[in-house]
Amino acid sequence: MSDHASPVDGARVLADLTALRCFGAYKTGVHKPTFSAPHLASLHWLAEKLPDAGLRATIDGIGNVFGTSAKPGLKLLAGSHLESQNYAGWLDGPLGVIYALEAARVINRDPGIPGAVEVASWCDEEGHFGSLLGSRSYIGDVSEAELDAARDRSNGRPMREALRDAGLEGRPRITAEPGRHIGYLEAHIEQGDTLESGGLAIGVVTSIVGIWQYRIAFVGEQNHAGTTRMAVRKDAGLALAKFCVAIDQRFPAISGPRTVWTTGRIRLEPGAPSIIPGEAEMLFQIRDDDPAVIERLEALLHGMADDASAQGPCRVVVERVRTGAPARMDPMFHRAIEAASAELAGGRSLRMPSGAGHDAQVLARIMPAGMLFVPSIGGVSHHWTEDTSDADIVTGARVFVEACRRLLAG
Amino acid sequence: MSDHASPVDGARVLADLTALRCFGAYKTGVHKPTFSAPHLASLHWLAEKLPDAGLRATIDGIGNVFGTSAKPGLKLLAGSHLESQNYAGWLDGPLGVIYALEAARVINRDPGIPGAVEVASWCDEEGHFGSLLGSRSYIGDVSEAELDAARDRSNGRPMREALRDAGLEGRPRITAEPGRHIGYLEAHIEQGDTLESGGLAIGVVTSIVGIWQYRIAFVGEQNHAGTTRMAVRKDAGLALAKFCVAIDQRFPAISGPRTVWTTGRIRLEPGAPSIIPGEAEMLFQIRDDDPAVIERLEALLHGMADDASAQGPCRVVVERVRTGAPARMDPMFHRAIEAASAELAGGRSLRMPSGAGHDAQVLARIMPAGMLFVPSIGGVSHHWTEDTSDADIVTGARVFVEACRRLLAG
Repeated sequence: MSDHASPVDGARVLADLTALRCFGAYKTGVHKPTFSAPHLASLHWLAEKLPDAGLRATIDGIGNVFGTSAKPGLKLLAGSHLESQNYAGWLDGPLGVIYALEAARVINRDPGIPGAVEVASWCDEEGHFGSLLGSRSYIGDVSEAELDAARDRSNGRPMREALRDAGLEGRPRITAEPGRHIGYLEAHIEQGDTLESGGLAIGVVTSIVGIWQYRIAFVGEQNHAGTTRMAVRKDAGLALAKFCVAIDQRFPAISGPRTVWTTGRIRLEPGAPSIIPGEAEMLFQIRDDDPAVIERLEALLHGMADDASAQGPCRVVVERVRTGAPARMDPMFHRAIEAASAELAGGRSLRMPSGAGHDAQVLARIMPAGMLFVPSIGGVSHHWTEDTSDADIVTGARVFVEACRRLLAG
Repeated sequence: MSDHASPVDGARVLADLTALRCFGAYKTGVHKPTFSAPHLASLHWLAEKLPDAGLRATIDGIGNVFGTSAKPGLKLLAGSHLESQNYAGWLDGPLGVIYALEAARVINRDPGIPGAVEVASWCDEEGHFGSLLGSRSYIGDVSEAELDAARDRSNGRPMREALRDAGLEGRPRITAEPGRHIGYLEAHIEQGDTLESGGLAIGVVTSIVGIWQYRIAFVGEQNHAGTTRMAVRKDAGLALAKFCVAIDQRFPAISGPRTVWTTGRIRLEPGAPSIIPGEAEMLFQIRDDDPAVIERLEALLHGMADDASAQGPCRVVVERVRTGAPARMDPMFHRAIEAASAELAGGRSLRMPSGAGHDAQVLARIMPAGMLFVPSIGGVSHHWTEDTSDADIVTGARVFVEACRRLLAG
């Protein structure tokens, strides 16, 4: 792992990541929701950096930033995203963008390396307004009607308004040019502790799990919290709590070894301390890379809802609102990353699935795709304490750039 | 129950209630949060009606409306409130205000009846900004600092801003004049089905239950919903659900015959579908007219929280945020209402506690107080379907006004 083995400028990579960390800084992390002022500032910062890598910068009509190359030969697309979850980590997104930028800086001006790396920063990977909107727009999977309807989940602001305020209204949305790229490579922090606890440097992503999301609604009867006897209540909030506990008790028996499920949001209506909730709703998510497991769990979920409705006093309705098929990463990418890791990271790599969703799963629908993970301290992610050591960041950058070189060398 | 037995104008009472129903109309109910435009309009409507009853109208610096009389002799204070819960019923509040207005119209200009009825509309009984703020201000129990800190629970708007926008900033807050009133009488819908199911017309309130409110906080660890294995999660939302279910299982064994408890609001942090909640909070309320029962239940609550914290993986903290002693209504008021009911409602009355909180419990701290209930169809309240038959409304008004006359006659 000596410096002369790689043309990567580790100090430059760390400096760029630190610069991005200052947009929307929050404690040791960042708060950079999609189309917030710090997010927009970071898009423009990137656009201004791209020419250093011999790339022409464009911010398109959905907030994707592209760096395109005029260098002849094969093109590899690389990138990630710049917005963050609310009050979350500094590397989730920016790491992959800066690795792509560094690869372009190293490769594109070097006549000895064939082809070029093009850079993409996909807008709203974190789902403030929708689901992977930027990358899905690029592959032609987002209609104008979907954009018309999209609103910021935190405050209800329409996406159209956010685009207008960002000065992006009326710009065309850039879509993929068939045959232009040999594939797409994305780097990301692991968001788990497998690499760290195994003393490893590089995760070679084999697949990205599917995400199935459900809206589970409970209908009871709104009434006064002081005058309605316990025996006659139809408390939708209590029905929801019982359902959560039942999931916790019954899912483990039929889930797979890596299945995870989460209730991330709960809403009681009307949500006042002196009113028995007449309605309640939970957002529930299941992730697995085996659709057969999901099928079993979804059937159980419907059965539990039917049983609860039959027993009363509240009615329970399960509605699937997001269906995510798992995405396979391309073996050509596995091999390139592993060879680069053998050369620059002592081969300390591991093949592993990604439990989180990424833009790579969208790109994989139209071109070969791969992902590389770096270790995440304590496995923390989606929290401002998320972090990776400088040494691991630099090692990851070297392996990433070498993998790009190998992919372009064919 | 013939018309000539009472000087009350039933048609006028119904017309006034219908007029108030049109401010903030929502389906068959109203949406009239404290200091909303329809609420402010209804305060001004009342202020303009008071002179018809020989009263001088004042809206004070907290939004209380007072009608004061220059008639010599004893004064009885009567009233209720004009704001509503969100999307709630048309009679909860206005009924008591219009009964008071009608009593003043009948009694104050009649030289044959000694003394006068003075009218009060207490601001924010429904607790959008605080707890019984208007009546507590009147008895001198609300500091300027409490007003500085008060915010609308629905949208965070500071109370000071709402007062300024309402044109009430800088007005003095009116406080009770010691010795002025022989007592306070308030009418309200029952908010339960005891009267309706018993074929009764009048509830004679003996006490108003105390409300104890708790903020129960759950502290876990925020993490990624896709990459964090089930075994290592510290899901604060799941801990909350388990706690709700445990309350449901353990409270009945040691509660009293009329104890009620409610989780009216739940918040998960950060509340995103792809993030395991690191923190969760529930607002929990217990009501009873026996403090010994509350003491037992509160001890159980703390014990359950300690057990849950000890077991892990989340820490549970119970904090009491509201302590409500039960309030006894005055026997002089019981007798006056029962005598009026015997005369005008065939004696179809029943002594009963109030499970809901009312401004009468605040007034009872400085003067004798009484409450009268009218039937509530199906016992519904705090919902837009809340209703009472016209016949029951008019009977209630006659009994109310006669009770006022008897109280003033001594």
